[in-house]
Amino acid sequence: MNTNYGRYKALMQKIADVNYAAGVLAWDQETYMPPRGADKRAQQLSTLAGMAHEMATSPELGELLNQLAADNTLSEKEKRNVKQSLKDYNDRKKYSTEFVERTSRLVSEAFQAWQQAKKENRFPLFAPKLEKLVELKREECRLLGYEGGHPYDALLNQYEPGAKTKDIDVLFADVKAKLVDFVKEIAAAPQNNDSFMHLTYEKQKQWDFGIELLKQMGYDFEAGRQDISTHPFSTSFSSQDVRVTTRVSENNLNEMIWSCIHEGGHALYEQGLNIDDYGLPTGEAISLGIHESQSRLWENNVGRSLPYWRCNFPLLKKYFPVPLSAVDTEDFYKAMNVVRPSLIRTGADELTYHFHIMIRFEIEKALIEGSLQVKDLPDYWNRKYKEYLGIDVPDDTRGVLQDIHWSHGSFGYFPTYSLGSFYAAQFFAKASAQIPGLAGHVENGNLAPLLKWLRENIHQYGKFYSAEELCIKVTGEKLNFGYFMDYARNKYSRLYNLPSGRQELKKETVS
Amino acid sequence: MNTNYGRYKALMQKIADVNYAAGVLAWDQETYMPPRGADKRAQQLSTLAGMAHEMATSPELGELLNQLAADNTLSEKEKRNVKQSLKDYNDRKKYSTEFVERTSRLVSEAFQAWQQAKKENRFPLFAPKLEKLVELKREECRLLGYEGGHPYDALLNQYEPGAKTKDIDVLFADVKAKLVDFVKEIAAAPQNNDSFMHLTYEKQKQWDFGIELLKQMGYDFEAGRQDISTHPFSTSFSSQDVRVTTRVSENNLNEMIWSCIHEGGHALYEQGLNIDDYGLPTGEAISLGIHESQSRLWENNVGRSLPYWRCNFPLLKKYFPVPLSAVDTEDFYKAMNVVRPSLIRTGADELTYHFHIMIRFEIEKALIEGSLQVKDLPDYWNRKYKEYLGIDVPDDTRGVLQDIHWSHGSFGYFPTYSLGSFYAAQFFAKASAQIPGLAGHVENGNLAPLLKWLRENIHQYGKFYSAEELCIKVTGEKLNFGYFMDYARNKYSRLYNLPSGRQELKKETVS
Repeated sequence: MNTNYGRYKALMQKIADVNYAAGVLAWDQETYMPPRGADKRAQQLSTLAGMAHEMATSPELGELLNQLAADNTLSEKEKRNVKQSLKDYNDRKKYSTEFVERTSRLVSEAFQAWQQAKKENRFPLFAPKLEKLVELKREECRLLGYEGGHPYDALLNQYEPGAKTKDIDVLFADVKAKLVDFVKEIAAAPQNNDSFMHLTYEKQKQWDFGIELLKQMGYDFEAGRQDISTHPFSTSFSSQDVRVTTRVSENNLNEMIWSCIHEGGHALYEQGLNIDDYGLPTGEAISLGIHESQSRLWENNVGRSLPYWRCNFPLLKKYFPVPLSAVDTEDFYKAMNVVRPSLIRTGADELTYHFHIMIRFEIEKALIEGSLQVKDLPDYWNRKYKEYLGIDVPDDTRGVLQDIHWSHGSFGYFPTYSLGSFYAAQFFAKASAQIPGLAGHVENGNLAPLLKWLRENIHQYGKFYSAEELCIKVTGEKLNFGYFMDYARNKYSRLYNLPSGRQELKKETVS
Repeated sequence: MNTNYGRYKALMQKIADVNYAAGVLAWDQETYMPPRGADKRAQQLSTLAGMAHEMATSPELGELLNQLAADNTLSEKEKRNVKQSLKDYNDRKKYSTEFVERTSRLVSEAFQAWQQAKKENRFPLFAPKLEKLVELKREECRLLGYEGGHPYDALLNQYEPGAKTKDIDVLFADVKAKLVDFVKEIAAAPQNNDSFMHLTYEKQKQWDFGIELLKQMGYDFEAGRQDISTHPFSTSFSSQDVRVTTRVSENNLNEMIWSCIHEGGHALYEQGLNIDDYGLPTGEAISLGIHESQSRLWENNVGRSLPYWRCNFPLLKKYFPVPLSAVDTEDFYKAMNVVRPSLIRTGADELTYHFHIMIRFEIEKALIEGSLQVKDLPDYWNRKYKEYLGIDVPDDTRGVLQDIHWSHGSFGYFPTYSLGSFYAAQFFAKASAQIPGLAGHVENGNLAPLLKWLRENIHQYGKFYSAEELCIKVTGEKLNFGYFMDYARNKYSRLYNLPSGRQELKKETVS
C-alpha cells in the first residue's frame, strides 16, 4: 500500500475509534446507564466529540489528503476515499471552534427548553431558543455555502450529500399531486379492523417473537444484539458490532414488530459494510436517505406484505393463540396496513407518513429563508395538518413540539425519511425483478436471497458511490417517486377494495 | 478559583473523560458485547488509552503543574492534588512511546498465549512470552527507579503507592509465623459441613436476593447497576455511575453471594468519592490496597459474620425453603466460613487466601531479582503449594497458569489483595469501637451507620491522604497485621471449637 495512503487510513481509523467509542457511550446512555450518570456522561461525550473534531480537522490530515488528491498511483477506490475525505475535511474546517462550542451550548439549552415545553404544552418556553437555533442554522448555511442554490441545501447536504432543495420541491409536488388524492380515496372506503392489535400481548413473548423475526432477516447476533430503549434506534461500533433496540408495549403489538423490523433493516446495512474499510468512506453508509431505504424496504416492502405474514402470522399465533384466535392472516395483513390520518409522525401509516414530512420540510425551508417566523410556527403547523391530513391539532405537544429534531439543531434531516421510503420502493421493484420467485421465498421465510441482493448491490459499496450514482447503477434511473406510487396503488387498492385497484388485485392473486 | 488551577482541573477532567469512556467500552466488552465485536473493540480501547496517555504527558500539563507546584496561594487540598498530579506526570513521562507500544504488543501476545496454555495445560506455550514480559518488567523497574530499595518496589508502587518490598517481606513473615500454624490447628479440628451450599439454587432467585443485599448495604442503584459477567468486577465512570457485575452458579451459592458483597464494597467506595473532584486525585481511590480493604471489609468482616446472617439468612430461606429446610443460621455461618486449603486463589477461604498471595509475591520478587527463571516456575509453584497449603498441584492449569495477571503484565498487583484484607480488619476494629452497637445494627439489617463511618473516615478524601497517612489518621497506627490475626483467632476458634478460642467464644456470646 502507498505509504501516504496507509498513514491516511491509520488516521481515519483513529478518528473512527473515537467516534465509535462515543457511540458506545451513547448506546449505554439510552439502554443501561443509571439516571445519575447523565451529567458526566454528557461531558464525556462532548470531550470525545471535541477530540474527534480536532483530529478530523488537523493540519496533518489536511496535508496528507491534499498530497493524496494529486497522487495518480491510487486505485479507483482509494481515489474515491480520498476525494470524499477531502470534501469532509474542507467542510469541517469551515466551522470555527467558537461556532462549534456556541452550537453545543445552544443545543443543550434548546433541548432542555423543548423537553419542558413539550411536557407543559407551552410552545413559548421553547420559542426563544428555537429562534436562536434558526439564526444559528442560517449562519451555518452561510459558513458552508450553497453554490447558488437554496441556503437550505447546505443543511440537507449534511444528511443527504448531493441533495438539492429544488429537487425535493419537485418530489414533494409529485407526492402532493398523487398521494393526497389517493389517501382521500382510501378515506372514503370502509375502514379495516385493527382493534385486535391493542389487546393484551405479554411482553416477553413479543420480545421472543421479535428475535425470531430478526434472525429470519439474517441479522447476525454474533455481530450485534437487541436491547430495550425508550426510543428504538440502531447504532454501530464497526460492522462487527451493530446493535438495535426496541420497545415493547403490552397493549400495542405494532410497537415491537415495526421497530424490530425497521431497526433490523438499518442494522443489516451496517453489518454489510466492509470491515476492511473501517474508518474510511467506503466503510460507511452513503447517506441517511439510503440508510432509511434499507430500514423501510424491510419494514414496508417486506414486513407489511402479505407473503411475509403468510410465513410469520402462524408463528405469531403460536405465541398468542388467545388474543388472535379469531384473526386470520388476511385480517392481520389488513390491520397492519390501516391508513388513518393521525397527529404523530412516528405512529403514522406508510402513506400519510409523507404528509408529516412534507409539512416539516416546508416549515424548515421557510424558517431558513426567513419567510416564516418562529412565533407563527404553531398556527402554520396546525393549518398544514388541517390542509394535508384533514385533522385538528388539539395542542402543541401533539403538534409542533412532538419531534426532538429541531431541539437538537437537526434541520434538513426530515426529508431523508421520505427519500428512504421512495428509494426503498424503487430498489424493491428492481430486486423483485431480478430475484426469481422473491415473493415465494418471502412466503417460505427464506429472506436470504433478498439480503444477498442488497449486500451485493448496495451494502458492500459504502460511500464508493453517491446516492444518485448508486440508484442509477442499481435501478437504471434516478430516484423516481413513481415506484412508490405504483407500490402504494397496487397494495392499498386491494386492501381497501378501490375501483382503481381491481386489476392489480386480480394480478396478485394469480401470481 | 486560581486561573492556572482552573486550567489544570479542566485538563484533568478531559483526561478523566477519555479514561472513563474507555471504562464504558471495557464494561460493555465484559457484559454485552457480541463476540465478533472483540477485534475492533480492542483497537478502540487502545486508541483511547493512547490519547489519554498523550494528554497526561503533554508539555502543556507539565508546565502548568510545575507553575502550580510553586504557587503558595493554593489551598491545602489544591496543593495535594497538584503534588500528586505532578508525581503521576513525571512517572508517566518516564515511559517512551516506543516502550508503551512494545508493552502493549507483548501483553496482547502474552494474553493469547496464556489463554491457549491454560486451556491445553501446557506451560511451555506461555513460557517464552512470560520470559519476555519479565525482561520488560525489569526494564520498567529501571525506567521508573526505586531509590535504593528493591527493584520490585517500582512495580508495587503502581498499585500501592508508597509500598516497599521490605515492608511486605516483614508483613508476610508475620503471616507465615502466625497464620500457618493457626490454619494447621484448624485443619486438625473436625470440619464443618458446607455440602448444602452446592444443592440447586434457581439463578433468578439468587439474583433477586443479591440485589436485596446490595440495597441493604446502601449501594445506590440510581448511580449504578448490576449485570452478569464471566469474572465479577466493579467499575466506575464517575462517582455517579459505578457498576458491579456478578456471576450466578446454580450449584454453588457462594459465587453470587460473595461477588455481590465484594464488588458492592468496592462500588460503595467509588460512590462515596466527591463528584466535585471528578478527574482530580482527591476524586480518586487511594490505592488498590485501600480499595480492596473496602471490598474485604464488607465481604469478610460484615458479610461472613454471624450478625449479618442473623438478619439475612431468614430472607435467604424465604427464597430457597427447600434446599435450606434443614439448615439454620449457625449452620450457614459455619458453612460459609469453612477453612480448607485449595488450589484456586479466587475460591479460597479468607485465611488460606493469603498463602496464595504469599506464593505469588515470592515468585514475582524472585523473577524481578533474577533469582528465579521462568522455566523453573511450575516446580517452584508446586513446591510452595505443598509447603504452605499442604496440597499437591495436579496440573499447571490449576497451578501456575490459573491467574490472568501475569499475562497482562500486572506484576506487583497480588500483594494488594492481602493488604486489603489486613487494612479491612484494622478499619473494622476501629469502626466497631467507634460505632455504638454496630453488631446490633448489622443484625437488624441497618448498615447505614457503618457506611456513614466509612464515608466520613475514608471515602470522602480520595487521594488527599496516602494509604499510610489514612491508616494512621483513622486507626491511630500504621498497618498492623495483629488486627487481622485477632479477628481470625476470635472467629475461627469459635467456629472450629479450638482450645485457644474458648475464651473469645465466651466473650462473644456475652456481648
